[in-house]
Amino acid sequence: MITMISINNSQHLQLKPLEIPWRLLLGPGPSNAHPSVLAAINNSLVGHLDPAFLELMDEIQSLLRYVWQTENHHTIAVSGTGSAAMEASIANATAPGDVVLIGVAGYFGHRLVDMAGRYGADVRTITKPWGQVFSLDEIRMAVEHHRPAILALVHAETSTGARQPLEGVAEVCREFGTLLLVDTVTSLGGVPIFLDAWGVDLAYSCSQKGLGCSPGASPFTMSSRAVEKLQQRSTKVKNWYLDMSLLSKYWGNERTYHHTAPMSLYYGLREALRLLAEEGLANCWQRHQKNAEYLWEGLEDLGLTMHVERQYRLPTLTTVRIPTGVDGKDIARQLLNEHNIEIGLGLGELAGQVWRVGLMGFNSRLESVDRLLEALRQVLPRY
Amino acid sequence: MITMISINNSQHLQLKPLEIPWRLLLGPGPSNAHPSVLAAINNSLVGHLDPAFLELMDEIQSLLRYVWQTENHHTIAVSGTGSAAMEASIANATAPGDVVLIGVAGYFGHRLVDMAGRYGADVRTITKPWGQVFSLDEIRMAVEHHRPAILALVHAETSTGARQPLEGVAEVCREFGTLLLVDTVTSLGGVPIFLDAWGVDLAYSCSQKGLGCSPGASPFTMSSRAVEKLQQRSTKVKNWYLDMSLLSKYWGNERTYHHTAPMSLYYGLREALRLLAEEGLANCWQRHQKNAEYLWEGLEDLGLTMHVERQYRLPTLTTVRIPTGVDGKDIARQLLNEHNIEIGLGLGELAGQVWRVGLMGFNSRLESVDRLLEALRQVLPRY
Repeated sequence: MITMISINNSQHLQLKPLEIPWRLLLGPGPSNAHPSVLAAINNSLVGHLDPAFLELMDEIQSLLRYVWQTENHHTIAVSGTGSAAMEASIANATAPGDVVLIGVAGYFGHRLVDMAGRYGADVRTITKPWGQVFSLDEIRMAVEHHRPAILALVHAETSTGARQPLEGVAEVCREFGTLLLVDTVTSLGGVPIFLDAWGVDLAYSCSQKGLGCSPGASPFTMSSRAVEKLQQRSTKVKNWYLDMSLLSKYWGNERTYHHTAPMSLYYGLREALRLLAEEGLANCWQRHQKNAEYLWEGLEDLGLTMHVERQYRLPTLTTVRIPTGVDGKDIARQLLNEHNIEIGLGLGELAGQVWRVGLMGFNSRLESVDRLLEALRQVLPRY
Repeated sequence: MITMISINNSQHLQLKPLEIPWRLLLGPGPSNAHPSVLAAINNSLVGHLDPAFLELMDEIQSLLRYVWQTENHHTIAVSGTGSAAMEASIANATAPGDVVLIGVAGYFGHRLVDMAGRYGADVRTITKPWGQVFSLDEIRMAVEHHRPAILALVHAETSTGARQPLEGVAEVCREFGTLLLVDTVTSLGGVPIFLDAWGVDLAYSCSQKGLGCSPGASPFTMSSRAVEKLQQRSTKVKNWYLDMSLLSKYWGNERTYHHTAPMSLYYGLREALRLLAEEGLANCWQRHQKNAEYLWEGLEDLGLTMHVERQYRLPTLTTVRIPTGVDGKDIARQLLNEHNIEIGLGLGELAGQVWRVGLMGFNSRLESVDRLLEALRQVLPRY
């Protein structure tokens, strides 16, 4: 091999093999993956068109339909994290000029606004203070007023810990020919969801929260109504990687090559879904609820207050008010450095005001709660 | 938990734990990951803002600069597969109405055309039969004629096995204020690349070929010229997930949350890059070249013919002409089912005409070649 250019070694590092500290991940996500999920991820690679891999894709599709409670044919995992699945829902549903009405009561509502704008939507918003939810009447009034092509709501606001009730929303949407798009990133697997019964047209989630997998392969689903709109587009989806009209030919019978799937993560996702199906969806939801209630009690015993009203509180993600005079960031740092426990800090309107504690997937266990409460007892000042 | 909707079990599968067959992956990718890469992927998860993870991100950046031979500050791994990194380069470089000139001599040239169109580019093309490359004169004439904002070339065409020489191209581009964008998906780590010496402004790759990792975290780099154009945009990048102006705040000193990185894959990528640095870039390139030459000789001994002229042949990916009267698909199927060896079939212009044999990363070894040749001896008809 002849080359006249000499190799530049200025960025050449001599590294030791990777050493990752063990952490109990009780923040807004990722959560610790189930050990058998990590073991599945460790399987050797196969081709993205290998018969064994195609079978695994079918299994993932079925089980995603089960955990979402939908019969949507177009139910897949996107080869990216939850934000990519969010963008898939916006990109595939939005035609330029569409009025998109977004419920903003936290960080991820704002993200939807940003994304929809990039896809040429005429974005309208309704807002609420972070931690609150919209009433059905408020939603009805806004839909009547804006007549949107799409209504986007965040079922589980990861930045606030609030659960947006969805019952009745689809009936309002149908009246005005509006598609209903729902963020279930922090609810899938941990909070009751009935996509079909609730009439949801587009939904997305992630793998590293309620499903207890590693991040990077993210659930995405479209109803036949949403698919019909996609098929009637006069222009291509403004995103090649996330274009469902191409992706569905890889996930469907055609098996047309689109991109090389991140198979390691699909191995993990299949195992995470298998475990969830083995536990049963209702049992899994109940486990999340029970452990969250145990957490709330324990935190109250420590004199702490939850930010969200009880009836709208997510079992997967709890926002805890930082007491006056306490340095919330310093407490989180102590938990990480002295106890190997990660919790999250507040974002946006809630920055400096709350901690965010996640009990999701494999980490929704009594032991997780006990460890956190014990550590908090040690690091919290006697105020 | 009170819910009035009963659970639908129609998509509830009772699955056995995952069983993945072992395959020797000698197709166009993925290749088998190095065992210690799979071991690294198996590490427990940490948060995407954990100090241990941020350090790992820095290491990945340095080592990507090393393997690409660039000092580009904006050098990261995108949280998606190589196609997502391709889209990142188009999305971040293209302003609506930009003339984008694309060299099309294979499948991935066509993909660039499709993507650039979605981002509002005024797309122009130069074409060559699949398996050939453009001369510097042809490139110069096209750039002079079209005066493009961006010239996009595929350094290593995965669909044809041809290596596009890049020496001198940047000088042409500078004359006309053109940014040079290069696909290095099948070359990074396996074929000499000198991004800075060659004056490349945007490049992308994948993790599962020359780097010997699992797919899903994909290298992407921008020169200061390309970053300047990004900073001067009057409109947002039309892709939120891949917007480098946001991503660079997570990879840079700000450490602003953007999305939850797929940490398992970054663990693997760090390990793959560590191994490559340990071997040394020049040694790694030489190994790929040497093993490819051994393959070509062996295939010729079997009476087979390579599709690409020797001087433009990629060491990472070889296209082999399917002899007249041989059912190429059937041979590939026999290799997979009887020998657990995956090779690729032709795409587009080369469909039915070639097999594609990859020797990339960990799989670029004499034993891989010997195993393939032995299997071919058994399945090829005596023609």
